[in-house]
Amino acid sequence: VVDALSWLEDADEGFGTTVLPYGSWTRGDDDRPRVGVAVGSRVLDVARAAWQLLPSRAPLLDGGTLDPLLAGGPAAWREVRDAVASWFADESAREVVEPLLVPADEVLLHLPFTVADYVDFYSSEHHATNVGRIFRPDGEPLSRNWKHLPIGYHGRAGTVVVSGSEVPRPWGQQRLADGRVVVGPSTRLDVEAEVGFVVGVPSSRGSRVPVAAFAEHVFGVCLVNDWSARDLQAFETVPLGPFLAKSFATSVSPWVVPLAALEHARTAPPERDPAPQDYLDDSAEPSGLDLQLEVRLNGHVISRPPFRTMYWTAPQQLAHLTVNGASVRTGDLFASGTVSGARPDERGCLLELSWNGSEPLRLPDGTTRTFLEDGDEVVISATAPGPDGAVLPLGDVRGRVARSA
Amino acid sequence: VVDALSWLEDADEGFGTTVLPYGSWTRGDDDRPRVGVAVGSRVLDVARAAWQLLPSRAPLLDGGTLDPLLAGGPAAWREVRDAVASWFADESAREVVEPLLVPADEVLLHLPFTVADYVDFYSSEHHATNVGRIFRPDGEPLSRNWKHLPIGYHGRAGTVVVSGSEVPRPWGQQRLADGRVVVGPSTRLDVEAEVGFVVGVPSSRGSRVPVAAFAEHVFGVCLVNDWSARDLQAFETVPLGPFLAKSFATSVSPWVVPLAALEHARTAPPERDPAPQDYLDDSAEPSGLDLQLEVRLNGHVISRPPFRTMYWTAPQQLAHLTVNGASVRTGDLFASGTVSGARPDERGCLLELSWNGSEPLRLPDGTTRTFLEDGDEVVISATAPGPDGAVLPLGDVRGRVARSA
Repeated sequence: VVDALSWLEDADEGFGTTVLPYGSWTRGDDDRPRVGVAVGSRVLDVARAAWQLLPSRAPLLDGGTLDPLLAGGPAAWREVRDAVASWFADESAREVVEPLLVPADEVLLHLPFTVADYVDFYSSEHHATNVGRIFRPDGEPLSRNWKHLPIGYHGRAGTVVVSGSEVPRPWGQQRLADGRVVVGPSTRLDVEAEVGFVVGVPSSRGSRVPVAAFAEHVFGVCLVNDWSARDLQAFETVPLGPFLAKSFATSVSPWVVPLAALEHARTAPPERDPAPQDYLDDSAEPSGLDLQLEVRLNGHVISRPPFRTMYWTAPQQLAHLTVNGASVRTGDLFASGTVSGARPDERGCLLELSWNGSEPLRLPDGTTRTFLEDGDEVVISATAPGPDGAVLPLGDVRGRVARSA
Repeated sequence: VVDALSWLEDADEGFGTTVLPYGSWTRGDDDRPRVGVAVGSRVLDVARAAWQLLPSRAPLLDGGTLDPLLAGGPAAWREVRDAVASWFADESAREVVEPLLVPADEVLLHLPFTVADYVDFYSSEHHATNVGRIFRPDGEPLSRNWKHLPIGYHGRAGTVVVSGSEVPRPWGQQRLADGRVVVGPSTRLDVEAEVGFVVGVPSSRGSRVPVAAFAEHVFGVCLVNDWSARDLQAFETVPLGPFLAKSFATSVSPWVVPLAALEHARTAPPERDPAPQDYLDDSAEPSGLDLQLEVRLNGHVISRPPFRTMYWTAPQQLAHLTVNGASVRTGDLFASGTVSGARPDERGCLLELSWNGSEPLRLPDGTTRTFLEDGDEVVISATAPGPDGAVLPLGDVRGRVARSA
């Protein structure tokens, strides 16, 4: 993404000057987190810049996390983003801004916001169908509610961690093929490549958030790896759903990309049959996002899941989440569910990629994988279409499996 | 509970001077919440008292919620409780304490702590068996994992509300008997009488909390009504568990009772077969609690669930919750699941009491109920054995169903 209009010398590196994602960082001995905006290969200390160039909004940026900005609402989001963008196009802001840029490789990135409730959906038809075929080879692959509503469940907010955090292999109970139930480290540890949506503006209990009000509540997106222990999951999941199989860690990318950066990525979702219920009708405008994900295992690309194929979209997920009158809060995170496309090399988890371990992946380094081994590193990244044919980077979420304690 | 040793005139009313539960309250125009201890028919402004009588611990009580006290840990919990108890036995403290007592009927009670993650278990064998019989009359009533681990799932922390909060009837999708899927207000709204455990001291991610460390982490208990929409639940629950059927509201009692008040309630849990896995072995000391619950509908007692019958105990639930390396945080709430005893009049939800609507309850006022109607009020209360044969009140959680918006 080259921005010829910017004074920034490295405007063609990293996030460029078009994405302008927000994160939380520290550097060196100063352990007070600051809000940053990633530009080129650097991070802007945006609160300090705002105190000089946009003092009315500076308090929203000065809390160390995105929480105050998230709660600020769409008008504030727009005003801050427009101002920051203008600083990099405007030579007169350079004197203030340039000294507040820190090399990105010198900062430590933190969880960018306080996660309130974490919900995980299950909205890829290809993923849900593959999982159904693997676990119920003789039955209908999709449960009969699947095309009526976006299936979802609550996850553990307290174990959402920032990219780079170690993921100790979880323990738990599993039933062996011979029927014995044993306790030990999971031997079927998996990833799930997902896109997460970050709620800014709360809703009140007893009210519903319509599809059309999505952008009044949701601030932006991050990438999510919803680590999953398939052996624990298989044993525990009936009757109340996944619990310990998911709750040990969920990694998120450190840079939250505002919805405003994804205007060119908006796309029509796939055809739905049956037609969604009225409260899920998202036909008024394109509610899908044409994001292209990529999953790397120890540096090797193992999948390229296309987010545009998701059956249920984020505005539908938020409308569903609140149709019963449940409220959302600043910092709520809801994730898409594993993103899988129609092709085998577009599948977003190892369960599908290795077809439950029966078809090991051969990696270019000569090794094979069914599920994750200790020391394995997984990186999920994504891009989106930008203005004038540009391809915008959306960052990545990474994590390495550690031996369990 | 008469305490003849106390100078408090109404020591035989309300919570007496033995339970000493903590809550958060405001009065009149002063909208800054304060931490209170309920004694007799009054509420002590405990932070103000502590600034004079226990200044070293006063900061833990001065935040408006229990959060700082919860994080303070067992030594602080003991020290504060012992001090407060001594104030009511000691005439010399009376001069400070008595002016800081406010009539309980003049205060407004708030959510006593910030709910971090909310987990709901399913640990009554009678309840799980009844539910199995109702929904799978031809199958085994208990899923085959049930006696191996405490089944649980994450609920929505953001919709945990304090007793007295209105509960608007939830909307959602349900499948009618003729197969049509419709959207509308739930017609099978239910209660679940439960006991909740409040975590004080966090654990670290990647570590496990053994059964024996329960009291180092858990501060106390509250009563929980986990409102449930059975029609929404039936349609959505396969394959990932309950979601909107539970997420619209969970009510908790305003007074958190410290574990220290329940020493006389400790009891051996029922026999387990098979023997629990090592990490769930709770045989070293009595891990159950002999609490007696009572459920009232519009003032009429409809059930008296005995908590001592729970198959899985709270120390086991915490050990299970963390066996995979998941961390707990200050303010985590985990609930027991519906408490049901062996007898029909000991069942903790209307699904069981009305056998899924097929056996309507006849109330003394001449009306009948299968599930809840608009305007219905449900009150769940409990008592526990105290010292010298006393019966300690543990408060109540109440809520009224409102018509959906």
